[in-house]
Amino acid sequence: MTKKQLFEQILAKKSYLCVGLDTDLAKIPPHLLKAEDPIFEFNKQIIDATHDLCVAYKPNLAFYESLGLRGWQALQKTLDYIPKTHFTIADAKRGDIGNTSAMYAKAFFEQMSFDSVTVAPYMGEDSVKPFLDFANKWVILLALTSNKGAADFQFENDLYKKVLTKSQLWGTSDNLMYVVGATHPEKFAEIRQIVPHHFLLVPGVGAQGGDLLGVSTYGMTCECGLLINSSREILYASKGEDFAQAAREAALRVQQSMAAILDKRF
Amino acid sequence: MTKKQLFEQILAKKSYLCVGLDTDLAKIPPHLLKAEDPIFEFNKQIIDATHDLCVAYKPNLAFYESLGLRGWQALQKTLDYIPKTHFTIADAKRGDIGNTSAMYAKAFFEQMSFDSVTVAPYMGEDSVKPFLDFANKWVILLALTSNKGAADFQFENDLYKKVLTKSQLWGTSDNLMYVVGATHPEKFAEIRQIVPHHFLLVPGVGAQGGDLLGVSTYGMTCECGLLINSSREILYASKGEDFAQAAREAALRVQQSMAAILDKRF
Repeated sequence: MTKKQLFEQILAKKSYLCVGLDTDLAKIPPHLLKAEDPIFEFNKQIIDATHDLCVAYKPNLAFYESLGLRGWQALQKTLDYIPKTHFTIADAKRGDIGNTSAMYAKAFFEQMSFDSVTVAPYMGEDSVKPFLDFANKWVILLALTSNKGAADFQFENDLYKKVLTKSQLWGTSDNLMYVVGATHPEKFAEIRQIVPHHFLLVPGVGAQGGDLLGVSTYGMTCECGLLINSSREILYASKGEDFAQAAREAALRVQQSMAAILDKRF
Repeated sequence: MTKKQLFEQILAKKSYLCVGLDTDLAKIPPHLLKAEDPIFEFNKQIIDATHDLCVAYKPNLAFYESLGLRGWQALQKTLDYIPKTHFTIADAKRGDIGNTSAMYAKAFFEQMSFDSVTVAPYMGEDSVKPFLDFANKWVILLALTSNKGAADFQFENDLYKKVLTKSQLWGTSDNLMYVVGATHPEKFAEIRQIVPHHFLLVPGVGAQGGDLLGVSTYGMTCECGLLINSSREILYASKGEDFAQAAREAALRVQQSMAAILDKRF
C-alpha cells in the first residue's frame, strides 16, 4: 500500500485507527476456547466488528509465537482474513546484521504478506536497509516508545532524535514510518520538525495513558501522518459473548473522536 | 544451565565455541534438498559432526521464520536434537513493552526450551526484565554488535557502555550475558572493566574479520567468560556430500586454537 492509498483510506473512513491484535488465550472470552482455533476465531470476529472503523491491523507477533505452530497458523489465517483495503503491520521489533535482517524481511514480506514490519534501530543502517529493499513494503522504525523503559536509553543524549535524523538517509516517507508513543505528547511538535512528512505509528493511547487530541494536534501532517494504535481497550472491552459488539463500540468511540479531528482539518 | 555448569563444559571440552545454526536452503549441499526436512537433516549432521568440539548452539531465528511453518518445525526438531549438555541460544534479538516481552519469553523458554535468548536493549528495563524472571534461563543483551551499523548509534556518546552499566541493575552474571562483536577487539579491555564477570557472546570471528587470540587475551575471565560464535565458516565449509566432515575440520581448527589458549590460562 502506498502513502497516497493509505491517506485515501483515512479520509474515506474518517479514521486513522490501527487495531492491535494482541490476542491472548488468557484474555479472550472463555466460550471461544472451545473453537477449533480460538485465536483466529477471536480475530475474525474482531475484524468483522471493526474493519469499517479502522485503516490498519497490527498483529503483535509475540502473542502468536508464544503458542508455537498453532500460533503461526492462526496468524497466517488472520492475515489472509484482513481485507486488502487495510494496512497490515507485523509488530515484530526485528533487526539484525544484514544477511539476517534480509531473512526477516523475507519472512514478513514474502512468506507472509505483511505491508510493514516494526524494526529496532540499535544495530544501525545495515540492520534496517534489507527491509527497505522490498517494493511497496514499509519499515516502521522504533524511535520513542511508549513504555517506561524508553527513558533508559532513548532519552540519553536525545538518542531518539538521532534515530529520526540518521534513518532519513536510509528510506523516504514513502517506505519508512516511525513508532512514537502517545505517552510523550509534548514531544510531537519537535519530532515533526525532524520528520515533517513521515507517518508515525502511535501506541499508548488508552491503557498506557496517552491523549488522542494532544497527539493529533501536534502530530498531524497534511496527509494525516498518524496511525493511532489501540489494542487492549478494543479487544478486551468485554469478556462475555458480546465481546465483538463491545469491541465495535470501543472502536467507534475512538473513530468518532478521529472523525471530529479530521473534519476540522481536511 | 548455570554459569558453573557452562564453565565445566568449557574445561571438559577445551572449547568455548558456539556453532551458529544460520541454516539457509540456498547454501546447504544440494543433495540434501531431496530430504523430507532438509533444514533439520543438515542441522542434525552438523550437530553430529561438531558436538564434542563446541559448548553451545545458536539457531538464528530469522532463517527459520523465513520458511514459515516448516521452518518452525525444523527449529523445534533441531532444538530437541541438541544434546542437553549444550547451552542453547535463540538468536532472536527480541524486546518489546513488558507484557509483550513476557510473551516472547514464554515462546522461547516454555513453548520451546532454549536456555537463552538474545534481546535488543533499545526499549529499556521493562523490555528486558520479563526474560530475567525465568529461573535457570538467560538473557543475552546486545551491547556492541559486530556489524558496520554498530557505529550508527552504539558509539553515540558510548551508548554501548551505558547499556552495559545500566543493565547490571536488572540481572546478574548468573542470568545475563552480553553480545560483543569480535570486530572490536580493542574494546574488550575496557568492556571488562565494566562487566568483569559476565559471559560475552562474541560473533564476528572468521567471516566478519574478528581475531580469536585478541578477543581471548582481553576478554577472558577466571571462568572463561567467552562464547565465541562461528556460523558460516563451519556450516558452509563445503557444499559437497562431505559438508559434515568439512564442518568438523573447520570446528576442530577453532577448538584447537581455543584449547591452546585455555591450557595456558587454566
